[in-house]
Amino acid sequence: MGNESFSAGLWVFAQSVEKFGGYTQSLSVQDQIKAAASIPGLKGLELIAPLHVTIENTKEVKVWLEDLDLQPVSVNPFVWTEPIWRRGALTSPDPKVRREAIETAKRAIDIGHVLGTRKMCLWPGEDGWDYHFQASHTQLWDWTAEAVREIAEYDPETQIGLEYKHHEPRTHMLVSNAAKTALLGSDLGLPNVGGYLDFGHALMAREHPAESAALLARTGRLVGVHVNDNYGGGDDDIMVGSVHFWAMMEFLFTLDQIGYHSWLTLDLVPTRESPVDACAQSIVSLKNYQRLLEKMDVEKLKHAQQELDSVESQRIIQDMLA
Amino acid sequence: MGNESFSAGLWVFAQSVEKFGGYTQSLSVQDQIKAAASIPGLKGLELIAPLHVTIENTKEVKVWLEDLDLQPVSVNPFVWTEPIWRRGALTSPDPKVRREAIETAKRAIDIGHVLGTRKMCLWPGEDGWDYHFQASHTQLWDWTAEAVREIAEYDPETQIGLEYKHHEPRTHMLVSNAAKTALLGSDLGLPNVGGYLDFGHALMAREHPAESAALLARTGRLVGVHVNDNYGGGDDDIMVGSVHFWAMMEFLFTLDQIGYHSWLTLDLVPTRESPVDACAQSIVSLKNYQRLLEKMDVEKLKHAQQELDSVESQRIIQDMLA
Amino acid sequence: MGNESFSAGLWVFAQSVEKFGGYTQSLSVQDQIKAAASIPGLKGLELIAPLHVTIENTKEVKVWLEDLDLQPVSVNPFVWTEPIWRRGALTSPDPKVRREAIETAKRAIDIGHVLGTRKMCLWPGEDGWDYHFQASHTQLWDWTAEAVREIAEYDPETQIGLEYKHHEPRTHMLVSNAAKTALLGSDLGLPNVGGYLDFGHALMAREHPAESAALLARTGRLVGVHVNDNYGGGDDDIMVGSVHFWAMMEFLFTLDQIGYHSWLTLDLVPTRESPVDACAQSIVSLKNYQRLLEKMDVEKLKHAQQELDSVESQRIIQDMLA
Amino acid sequence: MGNESFSAGLWVFAQSVEKFGGYTQSLSVQDQIKAAASIPGLKGLELIAPLHVTIENTKEVKVWLEDLDLQPVSVNPFVWTEPIWRRGALTSPDPKVRREAIETAKRAIDIGHVLGTRKMCLWPGEDGWDYHFQASHTQLWDWTAEAVREIAEYDPETQIGLEYKHHEPRTHMLVSNAAKTALLGSDLGLPNVGGYLDFGHALMAREHPAESAALLARTGRLVGVHVNDNYGGGDDDIMVGSVHFWAMMEFLFTLDQIGYHSWLTLDLVPTRESPVDACAQSIVSLKNYQRLLEKMDVEKLKHAQQELDSVESQRIIQDMLA
Repeated sequence: MGNESFSAGLWVFAQSVEKFGGYTQSLSVQDQIKAAASIPGLKGLELIAPLHVTIENTKEVKVWLEDLDLQPVSVNPFVWTEPIWRRGALTSPDPKVRREAIETAKRAIDIGHVLGTRKMCLWPGEDGWDYHFQASHTQLWDWTAEAVREIAEYDPETQIGLEYKHHEPRTHMLVSNAAKTALLGSDLGLPNVGGYLDFGHALMAREHPAESAALLARTGRLVGVHVNDNYGGGDDDIMVGSVHFWAMMEFLFTLDQIGYHSWLTLDLVPTRESPVDACAQSIVSLKNYQRLLEKMDVEKLKHAQQELDSVESQRIIQDMLA
Repeated sequence: MGNESFSAGLWVFAQSVEKFGGYTQSLSVQDQIKAAASIPGLKGLELIAPLHVTIENTKEVKVWLEDLDLQPVSVNPFVWTEPIWRRGALTSPDPKVRREAIETAKRAIDIGHVLGTRKMCLWPGEDGWDYHFQASHTQLWDWTAEAVREIAEYDPETQIGLEYKHHEPRTHMLVSNAAKTALLGSDLGLPNVGGYLDFGHALMAREHPAESAALLARTGRLVGVHVNDNYGGGDDDIMVGSVHFWAMMEFLFTLDQIGYHSWLTLDLVPTRESPVDACAQSIVSLKNYQRLLEKMDVEKLKHAQQELDSVESQRIIQDMLA
Repeated sequence: MGNESFSAGLWVFAQSVEKFGGYTQSLSVQDQIKAAASIPGLKGLELIAPLHVTIENTKEVKVWLEDLDLQPVSVNPFVWTEPIWRRGALTSPDPKVRREAIETAKRAIDIGHVLGTRKMCLWPGEDGWDYHFQASHTQLWDWTAEAVREIAEYDPETQIGLEYKHHEPRTHMLVSNAAKTALLGSDLGLPNVGGYLDFGHALMAREHPAESAALLARTGRLVGVHVNDNYGGGDDDIMVGSVHFWAMMEFLFTLDQIGYHSWLTLDLVPTRESPVDACAQSIVSLKNYQRLLEKMDVEKLKHAQQELDSVESQRIIQDMLA
Repeated sequence: MGNESFSAGLWVFAQSVEKFGGYTQSLSVQDQIKAAASIPGLKGLELIAPLHVTIENTKEVKVWLEDLDLQPVSVNPFVWTEPIWRRGALTSPDPKVRREAIETAKRAIDIGHVLGTRKMCLWPGEDGWDYHFQASHTQLWDWTAEAVREIAEYDPETQIGLEYKHHEPRTHMLVSNAAKTALLGSDLGLPNVGGYLDFGHALMAREHPAESAALLARTGRLVGVHVNDNYGGGDDDIMVGSVHFWAMMEFLFTLDQIGYHSWLTLDLVPTRESPVDACAQSIVSLKNYQRLLEKMDVEKLKHAQQELDSVESQRIIQDMLA
């Protein structure tokens, strides 16, 4: 429960207080990395290719990270927001766009090799639909399976974690929940395909985040973890632990139980706060929660869980606060 | 789109207007079947074993059905509500209870053989948890997989459709969404394990029901379908088509597209209306919706879907109403 | 923040572990009161008339309460579940039923006078609709306003708190959120009409419970408080503090700030646990939360609130856990 | 039910297909008005001051509208998005900012006088909070009431409709539901304060939009109406009638019943479609729905509503589709 592998998505630091109202202050990638490095306890970064790192400048970025003692967590292909992906990336009706999405992902794998990470958080954020009758869902699944197969087979040693999300920016994204990511891996017969579990996205999918972690881990398909919080309706990406106290506590406990001791990546979108402050406070909160968990009588809890005893399990977790 | 295989769950007719406020009027099973038979267009029934049909009285029930020209849709094991299942059925902490749940399911398969159906709707309605930290989700999954394997291997020709549901009566049921049912089948390597798609349960899981059908059908795992409606929060089980008009229209269209021409089972819980009236009106609505769909220019829609064209697809579906 | 006025709804104790699956163990009212009295820290009870207490037996019930050192919190009219209320109580289409609902409420006021309480929790649980186009909402409001006026004017010293609820048993109840209760009081010009704030019902209405309390208190319309918890979809009525930790903490803090030091009534529906155990654990949790709140630097928090400072306010509340 | 007063928010046309991915094509205000005028059936526009119209250029804008035969629907004060409103507008902790918000609203009233409209849609979109414990809700209500009083008293003939919204951009906005807007008007004792009912916002607040309209109209507080659609979680602002068919049908029916024959303003945010196409299709859909409603036997429905008869009311509305 003392997992201190705190990391962040570099994109968090492109935001800034000055950004409010659409007035983005443009920080260079290097300055964004420096901002991240200023956060007490932060040890790694997820990078987006080619937004943050390209085939061309990989070595330069590597030096920046090393100089600031930050590790590369994953390299994530940039397949959203840009006009080319307007109708989808892995599932664009245009075969050239689908090809470009796959090639972007392959290049991210190549960059990962140089940087020193074999993890990818693949967010198919534009792949879905907005309206009833707008899409053939069978077709979308076929294209998704095809693309994920090609990406995952490109390097069997790189773990491809699909960051599932229910909605935003689409009203419906295809890869919307944890089980779908595992099903994709299982049906493709590829062990390096799984889910990248974003705590807030699990909530949006009406999941119990601890269960989602257990489900993915059971078949070796929990690739990575994003932490943040929201109120269940949208992807608020607010400070960790600020809303779902018990859900986060159980999530951290379960990660420990299933043997996930890897990165906990902050994925926040602070719109009215400093990203550095919001991340720093999130790490403080995570440590608080871990400290509380250390007070718990784990054997007693396991016994209560074996009996599905609700009152006894409440008693045990309340004891942490007493 | 002219699928007229309308059926109902026999349990619908145990309810009655007089029941309101907990005053259940007890109809015999035979009288419940007669009530169902009075509904214009109704052709089949799902039965629960041993609630409606037992090893002992199967032949008698078979005669009742034949006499009223009703077909058996499925035989569903009764693994909920009774005190024995208070802590779960497939996942009860008590191994004797888990054994009893499995044996109940096997007996339902045996009964199906006699009645003449090889389908089961398996609703693990008590299998889940209510509180944070109450359960080891890994353990619950292991027990579920074990039980489903034994049931499905008991007769490979009987299709086992897990009726997934997000909550009610538990705050959280384990098998909560469509992809989990397919994942279970895929991981077990059993082709006769899949999902029983209840339209209202899909909504509770924040699914797009048409997509859930497509997802399950893609790997041959759509075992059966329940129809009803709700407002998204709870399992209202109200009259078909009364809330989600476009979602139901797209659902019916998609079932046709993926080649599902089997039973559409009414699963309603009328609390202030006559079950017979509520079912009769639901069939009228389903036929209305099918009639509208027949007006649609399907080729034009498919072309729009190939382009993910939202405005054009809206235009096409609105034309049905013009 | 040390409000120890813990009470419960007497209905909680009609449930029992044995009840699971519909097998209600029937406890006499007196035995239910005894069960309540066995809970450490419990000091009061809400009673339902005529379910628990009638004009005829009021004095007897009063003695039972006094003997066990329990105070009467409120007397609530029984205007739900019974067949007579199938189409509504305050808003039944049948004028005789509406009359009976009003008279039932008046009798509850009379009983309150004898018992020694001037509070009513009025839950118009059957007043609403299930389907689109089923009701004239204007008509429902007119009838509600009319009935509430007559009840409230019957005794201006008795506070009438409408227990708003979004759904269950109806898919839609008319008096569904906090502001509607205050609006009703404001439009009627009656100071003794307000809201009975059930923490879980506030969540169902997508409210921020602390804000609902502040809204009602601002115009003197916070009549009473029910505590429990749920996951936001349905009225789970599970143990206090088991899901919404921060929401409950802020709720307790806000009640203190707005000067509400009256009853905190447990409104739980334990289906798989002993009601006594669930209530006892809920009081333990409430005390834990109050104890944590006492550690908070309130002046510092107020300063942060004056600046709407999110990071600083998170820092302050996290300090309680450190 | 043949209300053809279709209008749009001018802001809809600042969006463009090219905008996707943040690449806004900047259209001049005049060109935006021309785009709106190209939509068949569109007759009016809501304008934002000073975004679209200022004290200085009011007469010029008036000429633009007249030349294209468009009527001014309302003038709405621009109190969001800009950096000055980062901590709120009507409820900013900074008194100078609150003053500026009030003065902006007064100027909007002045502009309305010149343009020829006495309606304001006031959206306090930045007024709220994101985190537990971040705000004193009592303070926020006090400031809101103070500001609304000053704005409404500035011109008693201008109707001030608060456009309530549950969340976005804040995780919580203060004025979050219909009843709160009416309560504000009632408590202030000001007849020209009410609600601006956005169909999608009503859904976000878990309201039944027809009932919200009836509630506001009952006390003369329904100032204006926005139409669009969403899936209940976020403010998708997608094409009218594309999701909630029956809810929109009942909404249109109810508006007619309560005597609202004023503007139906399209408030869409098309991100992947042409705003002109999305608005044009929305008007086609609205007319389709109105045409269906004309087929309904209103007297028969009213009779069913008097009995709260669910099956009969379903029968009647399904007849429109037969």
